[in-house]
Amino acid sequence: TFGKTAALTVIKSASRKHAGLEKEPQFREKYFSQTVDHFNFNSMGNGTFSQRYLITDEYWKKSHGPIFFYTGNEGDIWEFALNSGFITELAAQQGALVIFAEHRYYGKSLPFGKDTFSIPQIGLLTVEQALADYAVMITELKEQLGARDCPVIVFGGSYGGMLSVYMRIKYPNIVAGGLAASAPILSTAGLGDSTQFFRDVTADFERVAPECTHAVRGAFHQLKELAERQDYSRIQMEFSLCKPPSSVRDVRQLNGLLRNAFTLMAMLDYPYSTQFMGNMPANPVKVQTTSMNSSNISPAGIVYNSTGVLTCFDLYSLYLECADPTGCGLGSDSLAWDYQACTEINLCYESNNVTDMFPPMSFTERDREFYCSKRWAVVPRPDWLQTQFWGDALSAASNIIFSNGDLDPWANGGVRKSLSSSLIAVNISGGAHHLDLRGSNDADPLSVISARKTEADLIAQWVKMERTRLTQSP
Amino acid sequence: TFGKTAALTVIKSASRKHAGLEKEPQFREKYFSQTVDHFNFNSMGNGTFSQRYLITDEYWKKSHGPIFFYTGNEGDIWEFALNSGFITELAAQQGALVIFAEHRYYGKSLPFGKDTFSIPQIGLLTVEQALADYAVMITELKEQLGARDCPVIVFGGSYGGMLSVYMRIKYPNIVAGGLAASAPILSTAGLGDSTQFFRDVTADFERVAPECTHAVRGAFHQLKELAERQDYSRIQMEFSLCKPPSSVRDVRQLNGLLRNAFTLMAMLDYPYSTQFMGNMPANPVKVQTTSMNSSNISPAGIVYNSTGVLTCFDLYSLYLECADPTGCGLGSDSLAWDYQACTEINLCYESNNVTDMFPPMSFTERDREFYCSKRWAVVPRPDWLQTQFWGDALSAASNIIFSNGDLDPWANGGVRKSLSSSLIAVNISGGAHHLDLRGSNDADPLSVISARKTEADLIAQWVKMERTRLTQSP
Repeated sequence: TFGKTAALTVIKSASRKHAGLEKEPQFREKYFSQTVDHFNFNSMGNGTFSQRYLITDEYWKKSHGPIFFYTGNEGDIWEFALNSGFITELAAQQGALVIFAEHRYYGKSLPFGKDTFSIPQIGLLTVEQALADYAVMITELKEQLGARDCPVIVFGGSYGGMLSVYMRIKYPNIVAGGLAASAPILSTAGLGDSTQFFRDVTADFERVAPECTHAVRGAFHQLKELAERQDYSRIQMEFSLCKPPSSVRDVRQLNGLLRNAFTLMAMLDYPYSTQFMGNMPANPVKVQTTSMNSSNISPAGIVYNSTGVLTCFDLYSLYLECADPTGCGLGSDSLAWDYQACTEINLCYESNNVTDMFPPMSFTERDREFYCSKRWAVVPRPDWLQTQFWGDALSAASNIIFSNGDLDPWANGGVRKSLSSSLIAVNISGGAHHLDLRGSNDADPLSVISARKTEADLIAQWVKMERTRLTQSP
Repeated sequence: TFGKTAALTVIKSASRKHAGLEKEPQFREKYFSQTVDHFNFNSMGNGTFSQRYLITDEYWKKSHGPIFFYTGNEGDIWEFALNSGFITELAAQQGALVIFAEHRYYGKSLPFGKDTFSIPQIGLLTVEQALADYAVMITELKEQLGARDCPVIVFGGSYGGMLSVYMRIKYPNIVAGGLAASAPILSTAGLGDSTQFFRDVTADFERVAPECTHAVRGAFHQLKELAERQDYSRIQMEFSLCKPPSSVRDVRQLNGLLRNAFTLMAMLDYPYSTQFMGNMPANPVKVQTTSMNSSNISPAGIVYNSTGVLTCFDLYSLYLECADPTGCGLGSDSLAWDYQACTEINLCYESNNVTDMFPPMSFTERDREFYCSKRWAVVPRPDWLQTQFWGDALSAASNIIFSNGDLDPWANGGVRKSLSSSLIAVNISGGAHHLDLRGSNDADPLSVISARKTEADLIAQWVKMERTRLTQSP
């Protein structure tokens, strides 16, 4: 679980109902003929594949207005387009063309068709290839659209925000600036504390109802005791499982599933109901803490059964253990994400029941190596992201906004303090995972309204500066 | 012919005799365990190879002084170390550790042993892999040497200078600044005029003796007429060939060989004799123009027979046509360079007999494609270098010196005017190909003495700034 598609299917068309736009932006779905392997001229990737993107020129001042380019992350690009209404609202204000580009190996952008997730075909799924895709796509689309002098601003949330940062630092010739919303660029590069993530999930619940974390600890403790007694039928009943667990592995799976449910509520603790990574009620953390004060201790209902369709939970059809300890869903997007967590992206977060309310579940670099070599025949490179994408040595960069909401457990894996006059940290008090990217809503806290205003102003400045540069070039 | 090993073998030990150093730096030759494929975790490059580097800590203020890192280019690293005395002279002044790193696929740094130049093994020869090699090597060697807080400055000549620019723009987290000597970063990215190169070679001869270019034109014209008459024995005699030519191809080969000889004299027109890319007398352009005023019109003697060992010239053992129209030599380094010219690096220079003194010899993008697909099963990507390494859109960069000598035909393919207060163009009047990187010599023009002073001052500034940053980091 990062910013990606979780277990439940998302209903695309409905999800913009809460956004403040007068009318829906009409994205056209198109495909771009993309180089399969940017970094090897003699590989099996000696060809092209169809990369999906969404585009709308509804608000564009043709050949003059900027291009707002969403650097797609680990999921179907429609899901991001339909949950990032701020970008189209800003496009309407600033006369921008809007493009949402789908990340290779996700959604329908599969370089090798049905063999995409086989070894070695999976090997062309890297951050570098994805960035090169965007660089090439922007360059060629600008030509095609007669937009050569149009400044490009990149946007992204979560891993997509990391990609926006990387685009600006690696391709400033193409990208004038970036809004990186809830981008944990430090923790994923191995700079941080493995206990931070679940500590911050816990803090969200503690903030709303301190007694709640005691209840959660108690529930996990009870589960542990029942498991030790092998009282599996009681576990089945307490947690509404379709089948009783029957092994240590099943119990570990249940612990992971429950921890993941709390995590999703913390990440997606928006002040209104959403259909992003599944259906979520407004203020899910509050809903959960309230319901827990009664008899029901399991969070699974809110997260995994918000539609009320399920009569019981199947341990292995909602959540899978993978190289991302915050959880993987099913489906090919989760396969791809697992591979990325096995190679470049560090997600060695652990719970310990001391600094957090969850049972101790470790995930060391060694666990990661063991899993990844077995699953994908790869050895992770924990230092690589820091070498390749600068870690915290960002002083040579410019024109990046690092926005984070303080409810988001990913926030403290990102940049929280401004690093210079053009590397700006924006804090959104009471904000969950990239709330600022969502369309405006009557329930928005003032903090996000103010953050979006700051972002809009900075972006307008960058666009202006870049237009000068582009029109002065030979 | 770029900055690389040409046809003749270089005598390593003798080549520093002319440098002004009191004593020779004692480089130790070492090997670094390097990742074969930085950009694919599931490729055949799933392992390491031994990358050669040279190191001397003779001048280093241990754990404090800077690291001067030469980003090796297309040849045996010893050749660059022995012809870049300025770097060790500067290290002596500034207390620096000096490292010369060998570029993958050159010299002894062959990732796949005897299969290195086969398809598909050759595919891991890219600019990006080479840069990642240097980034990883610097990072790990700093750890090993207790040099974590030591600023790194990169140096390079010609393609090595391009790599220095790229290191600074892509890895400013690792590299504080770069001296890019005679780096044609614009022309090789397809930004420029295909006639520039041979026009500037011609201008060098015209500058020394305007009548010379007439003589050269006359000689090529005579060759053409003899070829049309198929008077091959006369051609053999006039050009001291071992065998008479017998085909249009042989004549084209001879034309290429001769054009290459003039090119080398222009590039290597140093004011003292050198053993870099073969043996060259002092002021070879002047030597040639003087000798041409007598009966001998062929330049081949000076370039290809400076040692007087050859009694005749074999058309195909000194020079080979390849994807670099400025010429390739024999040996595996030339194979590797041909591959790079077939993939990322544009070298579509042409002579036309109008703006230059050479016979019309075209080399279009189409010719390149045809040759490269046949030779290496690759399709060149002419726009890629501009996308990936910014072309002329360098305004986001900083701390780079672009030095060029005005005798060097590569100069006008590079940056000739300063772009900002930290992107400095240095012109060396009367300077040939990266003269400034060579050790000081009594015959040096004042221009290069002054250029080296400017470079030393800028580098000292960057080192100071970077030390502050490194020691202030957490």
